Amino acid sequence: MGNSAIWHDLKDPNDPELDLLAERFHLHPLHIEDCRHGNQRAKVEDGADYIFVVLKPIHVTGDGEVRVTDLDLFLGQDYLITVQEGECPTVRSYLDQIHAAVTQPRPDQLFYKILDAVVDAYSPPLDWFNETIDSIEEAVLDKPSPVTLQRIFETKRGLIELRRVLSTMRDVASHLQRKETGLIQGDLGPFLRDVYDHLARDMDMVEMQRDLLTGAMDIYLSSVANRTNQVMKVLTVLGTIALPSIVISGIYGMNTKGTPWMNSPHGSEIALGLMVAATVVLLIMLKKFDWL
Amino acid sequence: MGNSAIWHDLKDPNDPELDLLAERFHLHPLHIEDCRHGNQRAKVEDGADYIFVVLKPIHVTGDGEVRVTDLDLFLGQDYLITVQEGECPTVRSYLDQIHAAVTQPRPDQLFYKILDAVVDAYSPPLDWFNETIDSIEEAVLDKPSPVTLQRIFETKRGLIELRRVLSTMRDVASHLQRKETGLIQGDLGPFLRDVYDHLARDMDMVEMQRDLLTGAMDIYLSSVANRTNQVMKVLTVLGTIALPSIVISGIYGMNTKGTPWMNSPHGSEIALGLMVAATVVLLIMLKKFDWL
Amino acid sequence: MGNSAIWHDLKDPNDPELDLLAERFHLHPLHIEDCRHGNQRAKVEDGADYIFVVLKPIHVTGDGEVRVTDLDLFLGQDYLITVQEGECPTVRSYLDQIHAAVTQPRPDQLFYKILDAVVDAYSPPLDWFNETIDSIEEAVLDKPSPVTLQRIFETKRGLIELRRVLSTMRDVASHLQRKETGLIQGDLGPFLRDVYDHLARDMDMVEMQRDLLTGAMDIYLSSVANRTNQVMKVLTVLGTIALPSIVISGIYGMNTKGTPWMNSPHGSEIALGLMVAATVVLLIMLKKFDWL
Amino acid sequence: MGNSAIWHDLKDPNDPELDLLAERFHLHPLHIEDCRHGNQRAKVEDGADYIFVVLKPIHVTGDGEVRVTDLDLFLGQDYLITVQEGECPTVRSYLDQIHAAVTQPRPDQLFYKILDAVVDAYSPPLDWFNETIDSIEEAVLDKPSPVTLQRIFETKRGLIELRRVLSTMRDVASHLQRKETGLIQGDLGPFLRDVYDHLARDMDMVEMQRDLLTGAMDIYLSSVANRTNQVMKVLTVLGTIALPSIVISGIYGMNTKGTPWMNSPHGSEIALGLMVAATVVLLIMLKKFDWL
Amino acid sequence: MGNSAIWHDLKDPNDPELDLLAERFHLHPLHIEDCRHGNQRAKVEDGADYIFVVLKPIHVTGDGEVRVTDLDLFLGQDYLITVQEGECPTVRSYLDQIHAAVTQPRPDQLFYKILDAVVDAYSPPLDWFNETIDSIEEAVLDKPSPVTLQRIFETKRGLIELRRVLSTMRDVASHLQRKETGLIQGDLGPFLRDVYDHLARDMDMVEMQRDLLTGAMDIYLSSVANRTNQVMKVLTVLGTIALPSIVISGIYGMNTKGTPWMNSPHGSEIALGLMVAATVVLLIMLKKFDWL
Repeated sequence: MGNSAIWHDLKDPNDPELDLLAERFHLHPLHIEDCRHGNQRAKVEDGADYIFVVLKPIHVTGDGEVRVTDLDLFLGQDYLITVQEGECPTVRSYLDQIHAAVTQPRPDQLFYKILDAVVDAYSPPLDWFNETIDSIEEAVLDKPSPVTLQRIFETKRGLIELRRVLSTMRDVASHLQRKETGLIQGDLGPFLRDVYDHLARDMDMVEMQRDLLTGAMDIYLSSVANRTNQVMKVLTVLGTIALPSIVISGIYGMNTKGTPWMNSPHGSEIALGLMVAATVVLLIMLKKFDWL
Repeated sequence: MGNSAIWHDLKDPNDPELDLLAERFHLHPLHIEDCRHGNQRAKVEDGADYIFVVLKPIHVTGDGEVRVTDLDLFLGQDYLITVQEGECPTVRSYLDQIHAAVTQPRPDQLFYKILDAVVDAYSPPLDWFNETIDSIEEAVLDKPSPVTLQRIFETKRGLIELRRVLSTMRDVASHLQRKETGLIQGDLGPFLRDVYDHLARDMDMVEMQRDLLTGAMDIYLSSVANRTNQVMKVLTVLGTIALPSIVISGIYGMNTKGTPWMNSPHGSEIALGLMVAATVVLLIMLKKFDWL
Repeated sequence: MGNSAIWHDLKDPNDPELDLLAERFHLHPLHIEDCRHGNQRAKVEDGADYIFVVLKPIHVTGDGEVRVTDLDLFLGQDYLITVQEGECPTVRSYLDQIHAAVTQPRPDQLFYKILDAVVDAYSPPLDWFNETIDSIEEAVLDKPSPVTLQRIFETKRGLIELRRVLSTMRDVASHLQRKETGLIQGDLGPFLRDVYDHLARDMDMVEMQRDLLTGAMDIYLSSVANRTNQVMKVLTVLGTIALPSIVISGIYGMNTKGTPWMNSPHGSEIALGLMVAATVVLLIMLKKFDWL
Repeated sequence: MGNSAIWHDLKDPNDPELDLLAERFHLHPLHIEDCRHGNQRAKVEDGADYIFVVLKPIHVTGDGEVRVTDLDLFLGQDYLITVQEGECPTVRSYLDQIHAAVTQPRPDQLFYKILDAVVDAYSPPLDWFNETIDSIEEAVLDKPSPVTLQRIFETKRGLIELRRVLSTMRDVASHLQRKETGLIQGDLGPFLRDVYDHLARDMDMVEMQRDLLTGAMDIYLSSVANRTNQVMKVLTVLGTIALPSIVISGIYGMNTKGTPWMNSPHGSEIALGLMVAATVVLLIMLKKFDWL
Repeated sequence: MGNSAIWHDLKDPNDPELDLLAERFHLHPLHIEDCRHGNQRAKVEDGADYIFVVLKPIHVTGDGEVRVTDLDLFLGQDYLITVQEGECPTVRSYLDQIHAAVTQPRPDQLFYKILDAVVDAYSPPLDWFNETIDSIEEAVLDKPSPVTLQRIFETKRGLIELRRVLSTMRDVASHLQRKETGLIQGDLGPFLRDVYDHLARDMDMVEMQRDLLTGAMDIYLSSVANRTNQVMKVLTVLGTIALPSIVISGIYGMNTKGTPWMNSPHGSEIALGLMVAATVVLLIMLKKFDWL
């Protein structure tokens, strides 16, 4: 009387067993097609005497890519069929744990456990995004560079993807909660609401992360503008210091006659004095009129 | 008993046959006018004893322009009239395939096949946009240029257009699904929902593409600002290296008397040494105070 | 039995005839006030035994300004009163055409004709905006200038105005369509829906134009940033070419002793060679390290 | 039988008369507290046998600050209590006018008069914002400066404040219109709808002003970017003209031997010729390759 | 008959007393889990014969960080359990005050007092944000710097967090107000609406603060752009003054023959005159053609 009697756990949508099950439980051809085509939205649909649910497990790969797969479930009166599309190590390990741990024969409880596991598996990606955004925020203020730009870009892509998944999953949870069907017993109500709450909290978090990332982008632009401004100031101060000296030394380098103090034995000292004086006057003016 | 008995497939809205059909099936003059004026929104309208549907087939031309045409359908109890406005090779070839393949006499099934074909034909344009945006993303990070700007602009135009079409088409699918009419039999319900799902997924995709494109635009601006900053730095470093040397060589080029080391046999070496020293000190200061 | 028997067409809200009509048909004082104060939102209101409708005709003047006026209508069982506020040549000419052409005695049909005319008159302004935006798009990519900025600004103003009018007009059309009143007969239903469709399409168009204009603004900013970047590069290359030569010629212009090759008969050639070499090395470095 | 018999017009919420009235008419302690704490949202609340309404009069001070105060009203079957919080000269003068002019004994008509007066008093601030935005628009195109920036900022603050007030006031008007209570007689219906229309039009106006101000901000940024670009061009052209001359004069200033034409009697003319030629060639190149 | 008979005030969710209470009052295990896991959304949930409410007290720490904790409440017919998670000194002191002051035995009144206290405690953080934004606004106009950028960033984070809390708290208040349950008596209705109003006003305030902060960000960018423009102008004017002098002195420094006035006894004066003249002409041109 283990799970195996009621839980048909297919690891591959092309498993011919799916066709046998489809025949046995009168599964709608469109639902079987959905299992095999993959890349569905999360959704709940009524079948003849079962409900068909598509969940979207998520995991983040080592190099920070968000991978979304499909997990299809058929929940009947006395059976549960799960069809895993794509490889998601996180959800596989969760499913294996449920296999090992759960022994009750109620399909709707099994269904809830799996739904809960899929939703719990969203937390590590969300944490990963939190850390990434924190490190981006630091980078844009400290050292804005094209590399940061690229990271903002990729993180944004990931969040857009994640948001899309969460939003449809939340619709699924809301739908399941309100659904009047004999297939899910009443005592699961608070648990389904709990799953919904969890997803709503995750959505809030993703919205907040998107806001922060947009902010980081703005900060990046402002930060670069600020640094350009800084560089310009350095250049202008350099020019301010050098230009009067160049002009004055140029004048005393002319081969014309009659330049004042040209023949004075202190000519060079006078010229150098003029240079220093002109530079100082210019710097004071810049300061005083707040030109920089 | 082929399709031709029930399917009136007009390739030109100005075909006088349309007037004959209008008289025979009591089609409303406003609907006929809609067929002939073109450029309608996708919509579903009730006629006397038929429904009038405007679909919006799409194809992308070789040079990346999104072309939207109209396909008008009149679905009655025992007939289906399709009126193709404008040239859309994709939808034409789909219609021809349906002509060849389908032989059942139910007009509502024919209607569904055509609707499904029009919606399936949205996938190639979406893929084309995906690729375009990927290549734009690369370009803005690598080599932002006015050409990229122009591409962003044109892609945005296309997406705005596409979104408009998808949004009205989704309304049509939703409308058809909820419509209570004897003209569409109940067994088509799941199939119409499938079409709706497809369109909702497409809308999600377009929204995501718009988000990404907006992001690409921001990246463009940031990337250009970054490059200007870079160029400014190069100019400032150049100035930093050259200006002290110019000032010092100017001083030693003066024709005044009393410049120190002027008459020393190592005068030039001393002057060059001063130049190098001044430049090095300046570079160290820039580095130390993090001015660049 | 012409129009004149049922259609009271006032060209001026201050016409004392309006007071006579108000008394005769028991028009509400607030509605008369609305006619005389002008600048209302488009709206539908119920009177004692009539409906009061404010429409917003639009025309674009020669120098591209969007002018909005008011056209007030009182539709009763056996009369139609129109009060034109402000001068709108377009709507006047439409009204005159209707006067000439229409001879049926039904006030609700007259009402529909006028509504349809006002809505048709929105198309020329929309086309004008389309052309304007096209020419702005070209200008921002080719030659961004303050003049373009001013045009973007004014076009945006016009679109904001237009959008406001269309949105309230669409509400009016939707209201009229759903209104259950004996004053508008059922056979006008499809025609009113047609007007609504037309306005919805116009709104779509204006939304799209706003999106495009916002895009054009972003492109403007990016385009200017790009050009500044370009100018900076030119300046930096100029500096790169000139600075080494200035430094080297400065050194050979010093009046010190011991400058190498100073006394060589090929001194100048050597110096020029050094200049060319330094410039070339610098240009190669800029190229190699991708500094520009 | 004047107004004074039914209208209790308190100019100060701390007037002990309010406590007497509260006891006499059984006013809820929370409502009295609302009167005395001030800074409420505009709202309508039901009391035991009265309705409690908070209105938000507005006036603009001489130096362009938007001041919002509270006006609290208790409308009972045979009494109207108004409590004015804060000083608003505009609303005070309106109330005084109503005191002088109105003599009817119906509290609901008095209530409407006051509501209408408060809403009418929104027009001068809106006109003031219109003028301010017009003058900002001119300033950003002509002479963008930090002063303009500050004005944009303050105007934005004012509009955000104004919008908040209008939006809650509109809710109040909508609420009053739909309210089924014996306290407001049916003949005031069209007048309340008129107030609602007025507020809706004001909201439209504020939304439009916000859009325009956001546009002005964008224009500001673009305009500054444009001017920086212009300044850069001037600097680059200056450099283009001066640098070749400096290089060439530097070369002819070298103390080396073998510079061509050095000893020619037309040496200086040749050198000057070279300078002019180099500058002209450079300017032509800038022009030809569209580098500026 | 004090509060202690009906109010079970747990300061730590891990207090084993909670388990005893859970058993005694049949609290749902999911609710106990919510208490112990913390970091919930504010929410209202129905238990068997009680309602479970999560509130979110807020306080700002000395260094301007917004801290959000959880306060869980179980409201039964004749008991109230509060479970405080995390340390929030503000809410603790409020709770202690209620302990001291309140002596009535009605749990729903106690519940309202606590809810009201939590909501009142939002005002100091809001005031703190108001002051922070005021000081940021001044800083961006006066002295935009990376430090300001960082402050904008952190304030934005805080506001996003605060908004999230307020929005869920408002849902709770709205939920409680509409809830039909025997646990909250009717006379608390106006008081709950008052709490709702308070939260709505707070939300308005946070929205306004977000708008202002976004505006401050834009001003920052514009202000930096403006300053860069200013710096560029200074540099260009410097160049304008120096370059003609450098060119002319360079020419008179050439060792060639035939330079005009070279041998004139007033040569230097002539050369200096030329320098001044060239500079003046250039400055006049810049002014006249509005190049800067």
